[in-house]
Amino acid sequence: MNVRRLKFWGWGYADEAVPAEETAAIVRHVSGKLGVGDLPADPDPRIEDVTLPAPRITPPAALAACCSTETYDRAAHTYGKSFPDYVRTLARDFAPAPDVVAFPDSTRQVVEVLDWAASVDAAVIPFGAGSSVVGGVEASRCESYGGVISLDLRRLDKVVEVDKASRAARVQGGVMGPGLEAQLKPHGYSMRHFPQSFEYSTVGGWVATRSGGHFATLYTHIDEFVESLEVVTPAGMIETRRLPGSGAGPSPDRMFIGSEGILGIITEAWLRVQDRPTFRASATVKFTDFHKAAAAVRAIGQAGLYPSNCRVIDAKEAAMSMAGDGSAHLLILAFESADHPVEPWMARALECAKDHGGEADDPKAEAGRDGSAGAWRNAFIRFPYHRDALITRGIIHDTYETAITWDRFADFHATLMAETADVVRRVTGQEGYVSCRFTHVYPDGVAPYFTFHGVGRKDAMLDQWKEIKTAVSDKLEQLGGTITHHHAVGRDHRPWYDRQRPDLFAAALIAAKERLDPQGLLNPGVLVDPRR
Amino acid sequence: MNVRRLKFWGWGYADEAVPAEETAAIVRHVSGKLGVGDLPADPDPRIEDVTLPAPRITPPAALAACCSTETYDRAAHTYGKSFPDYVRTLARDFAPAPDVVAFPDSTRQVVEVLDWAASVDAAVIPFGAGSSVVGGVEASRCESYGGVISLDLRRLDKVVEVDKASRAARVQGGVMGPGLEAQLKPHGYSMRHFPQSFEYSTVGGWVATRSGGHFATLYTHIDEFVESLEVVTPAGMIETRRLPGSGAGPSPDRMFIGSEGILGIITEAWLRVQDRPTFRASATVKFTDFHKAAAAVRAIGQAGLYPSNCRVIDAKEAAMSMAGDGSAHLLILAFESADHPVEPWMARALECAKDHGGEADDPKAEAGRDGSAGAWRNAFIRFPYHRDALITRGIIHDTYETAITWDRFADFHATLMAETADVVRRVTGQEGYVSCRFTHVYPDGVAPYFTFHGVGRKDAMLDQWKEIKTAVSDKLEQLGGTITHHHAVGRDHRPWYDRQRPDLFAAALIAAKERLDPQGLLNPGVLVDPRR
Repeated sequence: MNVRRLKFWGWGYADEAVPAEETAAIVRHVSGKLGVGDLPADPDPRIEDVTLPAPRITPPAALAACCSTETYDRAAHTYGKSFPDYVRTLARDFAPAPDVVAFPDSTRQVVEVLDWAASVDAAVIPFGAGSSVVGGVEASRCESYGGVISLDLRRLDKVVEVDKASRAARVQGGVMGPGLEAQLKPHGYSMRHFPQSFEYSTVGGWVATRSGGHFATLYTHIDEFVESLEVVTPAGMIETRRLPGSGAGPSPDRMFIGSEGILGIITEAWLRVQDRPTFRASATVKFTDFHKAAAAVRAIGQAGLYPSNCRVIDAKEAAMSMAGDGSAHLLILAFESADHPVEPWMARALECAKDHGGEADDPKAEAGRDGSAGAWRNAFIRFPYHRDALITRGIIHDTYETAITWDRFADFHATLMAETADVVRRVTGQEGYVSCRFTHVYPDGVAPYFTFHGVGRKDAMLDQWKEIKTAVSDKLEQLGGTITHHHAVGRDHRPWYDRQRPDLFAAALIAAKERLDPQGLLNPGVLVDPRR
Repeated sequence: MNVRRLKFWGWGYADEAVPAEETAAIVRHVSGKLGVGDLPADPDPRIEDVTLPAPRITPPAALAACCSTETYDRAAHTYGKSFPDYVRTLARDFAPAPDVVAFPDSTRQVVEVLDWAASVDAAVIPFGAGSSVVGGVEASRCESYGGVISLDLRRLDKVVEVDKASRAARVQGGVMGPGLEAQLKPHGYSMRHFPQSFEYSTVGGWVATRSGGHFATLYTHIDEFVESLEVVTPAGMIETRRLPGSGAGPSPDRMFIGSEGILGIITEAWLRVQDRPTFRASATVKFTDFHKAAAAVRAIGQAGLYPSNCRVIDAKEAAMSMAGDGSAHLLILAFESADHPVEPWMARALECAKDHGGEADDPKAEAGRDGSAGAWRNAFIRFPYHRDALITRGIIHDTYETAITWDRFADFHATLMAETADVVRRVTGQEGYVSCRFTHVYPDGVAPYFTFHGVGRKDAMLDQWKEIKTAVSDKLEQLGGTITHHHAVGRDHRPWYDRQRPDLFAAALIAAKERLDPQGLLNPGVLVDPRR
């Protein structure tokens, strides 16, 4: 198959090694923060350890060439990249493995795969590049189906058309972040959408999960960049009209944005792209009081300045990510433009920060690759490469993210920080490490992102994680937050999503799904449970 | 009933007179532009001329006090304010009159009205302030129902709660524009949402129709200001969670935004509001070439400057609205902020305009009430008050609006201008008057708004209008535009909406509607036709 293999264990491509000394340094650093010494690592899973039952379904001849039943491919498509995914991989538990992995190379072949699935009553799990951290690509509730097909979209990897007048591009759903940027660059464009999964996620996945990106304000989700979509549903094709804006009924695109693969397969999208920025300003502002940093962010968010970066990293998160020494909370501010110098914007944002007690480094004319912002960015991109090494050493590490209006933020943050620290301590029997940053900022609120580390028991890590996850999710849902601001719902967030969203909306969504996917083949267990 | 009566003929309140000399001046001006002299006016309809059949349904005792079956109320709730609405009113044709007008004063009473409707199989037509120009409030396809209730929401007219930290307000669905502003002002806030119907439209109506407002860029539709909704459906209540942003599945709010009353009644919304601007800059830039003006707007739209106003008024529209002498196309530019001086923003926007051959007046420190921008604003607000006078004189006057990406704009505009002029000439037998402006601007396209005037035949005006409307709608739909950027679909735009939106999306929307409104009582004929 002409598709580069992803690791079935760890982050990245199978033919790509993570430098051992880089991993060792991270492990030492995290262990140090947790106050533990050298933790012994369990051996990494090898593909030879994996035994799978024979596939229950066989692709028809016309699809044989684009389908695989190899153990490697099935194993690499069993899970996403969440903490429980790693733990189960480490335990050589591949119970939800798909029977077949399909790699269609055209919209037509996607249609054929869905037709085949319908004919054998197989569940279809759409798969971008498998970096879901919410159980989005896992066939865990498919007992009633005749089989399971993991539908890998990565051969749909082209930028098909670029419209220079409208600054937009027609893009296939399986294009991954780097491939998208490489194809846009010759035109002078960039998507400027850089989720942490950027290297291992696809345009279709971004749209299906309402991915959150680079821009801290204004264009926070991929939603805002979608002009139109091509979607293959079991009932037929849907092509929405390409428009810069419309008021003709509820937006068809918005029904599919965030639909997480339950309504159809996103095979193509017209996306708004950006000119590559040539003017930049960035600054790091230090605060001794976290809530003053939050107040500064609120002021900037309400000022109509629209910084590209406006992220608070609390002192503990700064220390953990080596962006700071832990003595101060950091506000990382940046403006970018392809059109005009951004100094007046930055100057006013720095005034807002100063009004709330922030001490700014001198703004640099260009966003630095060194300094706090650069260190933070490096940690942000590299951290996923080291999660497997932490987990083999029994370190529980996870994140959760949410959003809340400003009126409730202070209590919300304090309660969640305390709850997370408490439950990690209770579950692991020792002090963990809990930190917070802001990922996105709105005039009316903020998206805080919490990270926790704890020293787990290798034989009980999954239960320990579940207890922590449940406690913090219960709390944030009760306090009025959203169970996810940009990680998506998947299967892992279902209990809290089910409480958060109105029951009648779920009923309406199920009715829509039953019309588009009458057999209920698409991504069972995600978002809603239609009759079946 | 404690609800101020609206005119059943003309624009505004029943107890409010339009100055005769103002109307006379407008009639003279428009007639002059059409090259015709003094046109005799037919007499205005009087309520005494209106005869309606007896209501088919009687409100239950509990609702009697909030319901009216008076001829005046039924007549005033028969139509919106479109050209065909005026013509039919002038013809004393009130065929679609509702049987009863309900004026509930609470969400609970809205529920009771829907329960009553269900029990007598009555169609329910949600009514904000009745300024629909697309047949959105007209019970024209209700032959199969036991009766028709017009549900007037104007007694739900309160700002219930203001959240100063998040800069948001909880607002009842029936608040009209001026009432909203009056209640926000003591808090230092403004909605900054000023559709042309501002004086006679409601928050719930804005949300239901994806109203387009004051901001020419960025926050073009009310959509962007909605934090959460309370919606009464026949199947029960829906309250969405109040969040600044979320990625948890398809947005429930986005299902109701633009639903035009077919899914439920919007009784309350949390809305993002704005600080009242204290810094302003505005400028008028003149262009001799319309397409250079468009290029300037495109450059400004792609520059990331986000002007509050960025509207091109072509030379003919400028002359008709008395904003200019017709010698130049005008670009009206404005920036506003409650936080910072906006001169750097304006300076860069003016550079973009100059790059494309625009000649700018000096930017004023404050948005002027005089000059081109002020004259334009005045005409914009006052014009609806004079439509009835034009129509009694046989002048066909209407507008249509759409949106298109930049790559297709030049052809699109040229074709529509020519088509509109042709069809007006063909239908009326003489030269009409066709003009264009931009209402909203996006990085990837623009929303052009066309106005046409022609001298009609009083005995055939409705057919003449239909022929024009059909020709221009066919053309814009074929060329890839949207049948509405912010006027909504209603009943009048159905044929083109049906072609524009994917059939399977309609099927999914019908499925959702059948779940929320199983008897199909809500606004029959709008957007989709469920089984019934």
